[in-house]
Amino acid sequence: MTEDATGPEKEMESQPPKPRAPIPADTILIGNKPVMSYATAVMMHFHGGRNILTIKARGRAISRAVDVVEVVRRRFFSGKLNVKDVTIGTQALGEGGDVRNVSTIEIRVEITE
Amino acid sequence: MTEDATGPEKEMESQPPKPRAPIPADTILIGNKPVMSYATAVMMHFHGGRNILTIKARGRAISRAVDVVEVVRRRFFSGKLNVKDVTIGTQALGEGGDVRNVSTIEIRVEITE
Repeated sequence: MTEDATGPEKEMESQPPKPRAPIPADTILIGNKPVMSYATAVMMHFHGGRNILTIKARGRAISRAVDVVEVVRRRFFSGKLNVKDVTIGTQALGEGGDVRNVSTIEIRVEITE
Repeated sequence: MTEDATGPEKEMESQPPKPRAPIPADTILIGNKPVMSYATAVMMHFHGGRNILTIKARGRAISRAVDVVEVVRRRFFSGKLNVKDVTIGTQALGEGGDVRNVSTIEIRVEITE
């Protein structure tokens, strides 16, 4: 059952290059929207009663992921939001002859009361 | 002798907003050069006999810093280069009414034989 853990990796000929795995709960993916869009999403996550969150990004969005964490941490949670863990890695995107390696980041943040 | 290490950033009339602190040994600052330039610098650092290095970046260069670490780790040090610690933060740039907050990252890598 490795596929469940890593996301479906079916190679159906001309399917989209990599079907996106279901996004786990307590995770926010950072893309190309403005920083404040994601900061709002982070705030809503925590105001919903949860106290842990993983913020993921890849490629150029990595800088924005750090921005999101820092903005939320400094402006909205002064001192109460802690970065528990930062993991960097590489993800292969694409298939066949068109595989590119993209850097990834995962930032785990937690609220301490 | 900070200028020797970072390249001349003379702004003769209006002094630079924040005099750059001397770069500590075992540190590489990531800027706007191509990833491979920094990857080469990292390689040279380790080939010089040292086995620990901190890679720093801020703003948009954060993504590039992760790229540098990942490229070196995967292509040149398969399995022998470990990310020991990743720290994110915020730095205030500028002075007076023109202060901007910029996100920062520090990635500490170490060679294990």
